[in-house]
Amino acid sequence: MREIVGSVTAVEGVSASGVSAGIKGDGKPDLALIFCERPAAAAGVFTTNLVKAAPVLLSQSRVKSGKAQAIVANSGNANACTGPEGFEDAKRMARIAAEELGIDPKLVLVASTGVIGVRLPMDKIEKGIKAAVKALNPKGGHEAARAIMTTDKVPKECAVELEVGGEKVRIGAIAKGAGMIRPNMATMLCFITTDVDIEPEILQRALKESVDRSFNRITVDGDMSTNDMVLILATGSAGNPKISSPQQEEYARFREGLDYVTMKLARMIVEDGEGATKLITVTVKGARDEREAEMAARAVAGSLLVKTAMFGMDPNWGRVAAALGASGAVFNPEQLDIWFDDVQIVKGGVATDYDEEQVKRLLFKNNIRITADLNAGQAEATIWTCDLTDEYIKINAHYRT
Amino acid sequence: MREIVGSVTAVEGVSASGVSAGIKGDGKPDLALIFCERPAAAAGVFTTNLVKAAPVLLSQSRVKSGKAQAIVANSGNANACTGPEGFEDAKRMARIAAEELGIDPKLVLVASTGVIGVRLPMDKIEKGIKAAVKALNPKGGHEAARAIMTTDKVPKECAVELEVGGEKVRIGAIAKGAGMIRPNMATMLCFITTDVDIEPEILQRALKESVDRSFNRITVDGDMSTNDMVLILATGSAGNPKISSPQQEEYARFREGLDYVTMKLARMIVEDGEGATKLITVTVKGARDEREAEMAARAVAGSLLVKTAMFGMDPNWGRVAAALGASGAVFNPEQLDIWFDDVQIVKGGVATDYDEEQVKRLLFKNNIRITADLNAGQAEATIWTCDLTDEYIKINAHYRT
Repeated sequence: MREIVGSVTAVEGVSASGVSAGIKGDGKPDLALIFCERPAAAAGVFTTNLVKAAPVLLSQSRVKSGKAQAIVANSGNANACTGPEGFEDAKRMARIAAEELGIDPKLVLVASTGVIGVRLPMDKIEKGIKAAVKALNPKGGHEAARAIMTTDKVPKECAVELEVGGEKVRIGAIAKGAGMIRPNMATMLCFITTDVDIEPEILQRALKESVDRSFNRITVDGDMSTNDMVLILATGSAGNPKISSPQQEEYARFREGLDYVTMKLARMIVEDGEGATKLITVTVKGARDEREAEMAARAVAGSLLVKTAMFGMDPNWGRVAAALGASGAVFNPEQLDIWFDDVQIVKGGVATDYDEEQVKRLLFKNNIRITADLNAGQAEATIWTCDLTDEYIKINAHYRT
Repeated sequence: MREIVGSVTAVEGVSASGVSAGIKGDGKPDLALIFCERPAAAAGVFTTNLVKAAPVLLSQSRVKSGKAQAIVANSGNANACTGPEGFEDAKRMARIAAEELGIDPKLVLVASTGVIGVRLPMDKIEKGIKAAVKALNPKGGHEAARAIMTTDKVPKECAVELEVGGEKVRIGAIAKGAGMIRPNMATMLCFITTDVDIEPEILQRALKESVDRSFNRITVDGDMSTNDMVLILATGSAGNPKISSPQQEEYARFREGLDYVTMKLARMIVEDGEGATKLITVTVKGARDEREAEMAARAVAGSLLVKTAMFGMDPNWGRVAAALGASGAVFNPEQLDIWFDDVQIVKGGVATDYDEEQVKRLLFKNNIRITADLNAGQAEATIWTCDLTDEYIKINAHYRT
């Protein structure tokens, strides 16, 4: 497997575009379209928030057919908490795209990100979709990536090429998200395409497993969007032996490629977290089981005190110990070990003789590993997060005003 | 019941003091002592963090006897993650106090708050305790309140007088906490005295119930200290019919007074939250049961996005809806109602025709109510929190450095 220069259009037969429809108000691109020449196997993973945006409800229902051919997405308006009218708007977005593309509306998936509780400006959406269809381009992935950006500082794209069952397979993807729910310019979105040949239900399983190990393992502020969505379209044109079981060797190969792409994009989202200056990788080892390992890692990664200490480059390991102790994971505090990068700070629940200046220096880096060994079992989990800064407060305090 | 001017020494036969032992390094008071003339009924509620400080382990074990006569507490050092030596230090603190007071060491409870992972300076502690015993004063509650302060901006004291079984009963208390775990100058502490006559196990039950509705219903940043502790000593000198059952009329009366004191101190802690500019009262009504009501209210009160929006005086109700939807409470999003103070912002899951300028004006106040009705049942819960500000980041980013 190798990473290649490319985007969601790295896959043959996939074109995309991004245009300015005027939804955002500042003239920046805000409408993206991804189109496969032929109907593709489709799968999706959606927010588990009870309050789901209209496009989530629509795409979640449509993806159940296992088939889709296009994704239309807008930024600047989440079409969430907009009632039955909002659901009709989402359906109309799909219908307009389908008419322009000359395909069945049921094959169009829809995504939105932006302000909650405000109806979509359907006239602008309609004009935007028409322009996006005209602009479709086999190299348009980058434009699509830009059109789904909100507070993202950089567009997020990734593509890989790998061999599956003797055939070259490509996976390309774009994502957006500053790592958090943003009810105004909200949400984590990721759209993936591939030419692998795979049964839709196996594709769904692969996507779910991959998302659980990537997007579901990052946290910026613990909030969960009404609009989060990861979609994948598989054209099948690679000609590999069709993947129809997770036991197949080809399934494992494909998962490797998919995991590479989702994990890279997930880390890009955290690195681009609002106001973030550091990527923090929290690993908990020696937990009784994987669930407790994840709970413990999540507690450390979610602790405001840990995150602010990292921002302040303060080796405040007591906050790590306290977060672990409150996590619900079961361990003996007198057997707790903690490292910052490779420097052991705590051994057997008490401070080692570490060199405070050395540790402070390593916290100056923009990439920090916090590792804890609970010494209670064999399970391990990693969660990625970023530091919490005054810039985050600035961004979020005055968002709508 | 009426609130009276007073502190933990509002109760006859209780004296207290606060002195500077030099633990903090800046010369501020850092050692507090509370003493009852005679052994009192005692009860305590302690942090559920797996990583418990030595004084928590010691006091938790001693309070099981149902009897205590003194509380000695220091600020500036948490005596947490200090191993078996730290536990010996906590015991020695109690022993020194007992010797100076001429009482059984088992009747002395211990509390600490401050930096984690550093041994107590026992020479300073010893001198401090001796000075504190000499300084004991029936009006010394205020000095004790000051000596347990860390980043608190104001000392927290409260006293009430009420009638229980025809007799005048007093409850007095002091507390500290900027509403969060602070592994350097850590923790929520509360010490309560009363002259009510009550069986220790009933006192324990009353305290637990009262803490569940007060200190356990506030959140600043979701972190949980290794040192949190609420202690109560009941001298029994009021002469009321002894409370020996929660069914007794006197129990209900006493609980009223106790709840008044704990809820007032809990709100004072949130108002004094680090960097906070606003007290936010989150009430969730219409939940299926109390557990879900509390989960939902806690999710809103714990949402960084809600808290930063309140700081920015931004009526961003979408963040409230998203937090409720992610809380785990079950409800129909299409029946969700939300109010800021008395202004209904959301009805049936969609925005009302509210006056944005009016709502912005009400968010300028330093006391804001957010109310949500899930319309899924009859249960209700309230959680108090504060806004999240750039000042919080400043305080916590460079704490140890």
